[in-house]
Amino acid sequence: MKVAPQSLVHHLYLNLNDSGSMQFHEAPVFPRGFRCASKNCGLKPSARDLTLFTSEVDAAAAAVFTRNHFPGAPVLLGRQTIRAGTLRAIVANSRISNVATGPLGVENARRMAAAAATEAGTTEDRVLVSSTGVIGVPLPIEKIENGLRGMAAALQDDPVVGAEGIMTTDTKPKALSAQVGSATITWVAKGAGMIQPDMATMLVYIFTDAAFDAAALDRMLRRAVHVSFNMLSIDSDTSTSDTCAILANGLAGPVPASEFEPALIAGCVRVTEMLARDGEGATRLLRVSVDGAASEDDARNVARTIINSPLIKTMAHGADPNVGRILMAIGKCFNCTIVPDLTDASINGTPVVIGGVRAAFDEARVREALAGDTVDITITLGVGHGRAVGWGCDLSAGYIDENAAYYSS
Amino acid sequence: MKVAPQSLVHHLYLNLNDSGSMQFHEAPVFPRGFRCASKNCGLKPSARDLTLFTSEVDAAAAAVFTRNHFPGAPVLLGRQTIRAGTLRAIVANSRISNVATGPLGVENARRMAAAAATEAGTTEDRVLVSSTGVIGVPLPIEKIENGLRGMAAALQDDPVVGAEGIMTTDTKPKALSAQVGSATITWVAKGAGMIQPDMATMLVYIFTDAAFDAAALDRMLRRAVHVSFNMLSIDSDTSTSDTCAILANGLAGPVPASEFEPALIAGCVRVTEMLARDGEGATRLLRVSVDGAASEDDARNVARTIINSPLIKTMAHGADPNVGRILMAIGKCFNCTIVPDLTDASINGTPVVIGGVRAAFDEARVREALAGDTVDITITLGVGHGRAVGWGCDLSAGYIDENAAYYSS
Repeated sequence: MKVAPQSLVHHLYLNLNDSGSMQFHEAPVFPRGFRCASKNCGLKPSARDLTLFTSEVDAAAAAVFTRNHFPGAPVLLGRQTIRAGTLRAIVANSRISNVATGPLGVENARRMAAAAATEAGTTEDRVLVSSTGVIGVPLPIEKIENGLRGMAAALQDDPVVGAEGIMTTDTKPKALSAQVGSATITWVAKGAGMIQPDMATMLVYIFTDAAFDAAALDRMLRRAVHVSFNMLSIDSDTSTSDTCAILANGLAGPVPASEFEPALIAGCVRVTEMLARDGEGATRLLRVSVDGAASEDDARNVARTIINSPLIKTMAHGADPNVGRILMAIGKCFNCTIVPDLTDASINGTPVVIGGVRAAFDEARVREALAGDTVDITITLGVGHGRAVGWGCDLSAGYIDENAAYYSS
Repeated sequence: MKVAPQSLVHHLYLNLNDSGSMQFHEAPVFPRGFRCASKNCGLKPSARDLTLFTSEVDAAAAAVFTRNHFPGAPVLLGRQTIRAGTLRAIVANSRISNVATGPLGVENARRMAAAAATEAGTTEDRVLVSSTGVIGVPLPIEKIENGLRGMAAALQDDPVVGAEGIMTTDTKPKALSAQVGSATITWVAKGAGMIQPDMATMLVYIFTDAAFDAAALDRMLRRAVHVSFNMLSIDSDTSTSDTCAILANGLAGPVPASEFEPALIAGCVRVTEMLARDGEGATRLLRVSVDGAASEDDARNVARTIINSPLIKTMAHGADPNVGRILMAIGKCFNCTIVPDLTDASINGTPVVIGGVRAAFDEARVREALAGDTVDITITLGVGHGRAVGWGCDLSAGYIDENAAYYSS
């Protein structure tokens, strides 16, 4: 079956509201066989900082990691681990990212996998490790090993418990689940800053009881990430720890890929929006749809440039319809085919640029749209058939406050 | 004479303080034959919004303009005007940029040139026009024509008067002058946001009474812009109006290019720093020197990426030595040759990263450096001989405040 994920996203977004026809559970649940636990092990003063996810049987698995030239030790280890295509558990700590820590960092990541393996009843080569937090600080591995000891007894069924355990500057836990035939897919995610993944988002773990092999999971995961997390930017910075993994333990038996993949994409898109909405200091979701580009690459480039423009982000924050900034941002895509006379733009359905010139529009209406929960900017380039959707958020003083003193806090 | 501008900048920056051995006048003066006037013509409530610069004789001239796909009408006109290589006057208004205004916008820019030509005693094809301010709003050309009428009588000798006339969100006027043999070079500039020029900065006018032809000016201007204004980024956004022009009226006679060009570069670098320091909401100058890159392009790319990183900018703002962010920013230069083990970084001379790993350093000392007027980040990539210097500023709540409500204010 041929799948065109970008078209699917367009179908979801241009024809329907939010995540389209996909139904998500009101309260997220785990697929059969998956459980989690989280606790404080002393990295943070009192909040949970250690999380364990397990499957009761081996799961086929795939993962994508940050492309940053300085990947954290867990990413270096994870790239090896995932090659076998089998996972039984994921262990993650927050507060310290174990990045720029040299050979000791890799050794610590390995010790963390080993300690988690004991709890999950498996071997360290079947445990994916993640660490998120400050860069360049040695991991207090003994605290983590002590914390893990006996954690199997605390494993339970609520994915939100896992989502809470991996939070850093997130203001809320992020978990989601949906039914696909007899199977369930569950997303657990974190990440609110240092996000322009260019591969995945911060930490996103996807669990399913559908039966797929690792190669099929890898193919579907990459396509889903391409149109969702890779089109998300909170602040244009790219983490050294980004990880997105999918585990399929097969306990629900086979599910047609033609049903599973759209659901996977729809959920990844929904999680992308959850991450964007909870961007550091964010007060609203910014969604940019580009159509009529010379190529998909051009469309992605324009969407991302608008999402990343501080002047667009502050315009959204101030709900001030200074729409010329949209043209400025499109215009700085130097390598894209842009024909000013053919360029149109609208905000939440109101045309604000027609043929490269500011349109006469109802300012109060646009002001109201910009002040809403979701700002939808639609760009039509008129030069081809390339399409893309990008997600981001406004830029507020809250972002500055959080990041001016993150390290010492 | 062969000139390597990047090396010159490195000489200026790595071996000497600030603008090196170059002496600037304590109070800026004009070269022989240049004068200016500025006034309020009703675009702003009461601040000056209209400025005229004239030369008493024709001047050889060169200019570079924004690469944005949506250049303003004055840029479209200016590209034609500069082809002849001769200017007699520059006219500029602030508050409204005459961008995205269609054919009427170009006609208005032409009328503005004609009205200024009358005052300067020349023809409209020898007048360079600039407009800066809000995008997509029609230019009230009658107010500008009325304002220009009789403005010749107000022409006087202080370049600061011109600098004041072109200010938008700048907090202070920017003018500078220096002596080169018998000639003077004077810079008048504005611009504090929407600056990642990728060609020039906002508005920079350079006046000299040295004698050069237009081709020589063009060559020297492009080289100077390459290592100065093109390495400046306040917010990664690229204006639709950026213009940098140089006028040489020859009244001081010839000056050796080997003396003139280093002075031109040193002044452009100094103006770049003035612009960065006065970035919207900026409280300090961020200067990034990159050395040992695989190529000059790599060095420029790394310098710009660090300058543009919101997490580096907020680190500088908060004076919080979260130095792992430097590695994160270098690491997201996906197309550059980066070898983690060979990567070093220091802040104001204190090594903070050695061989890709956070160094043990005196935190109080680095905190003090980050809290100072100038934050100097030096990166050594260890893989080649490419070098570059980039300039920017910290990111503060002031930037958000200014840009969340710029249009309506």
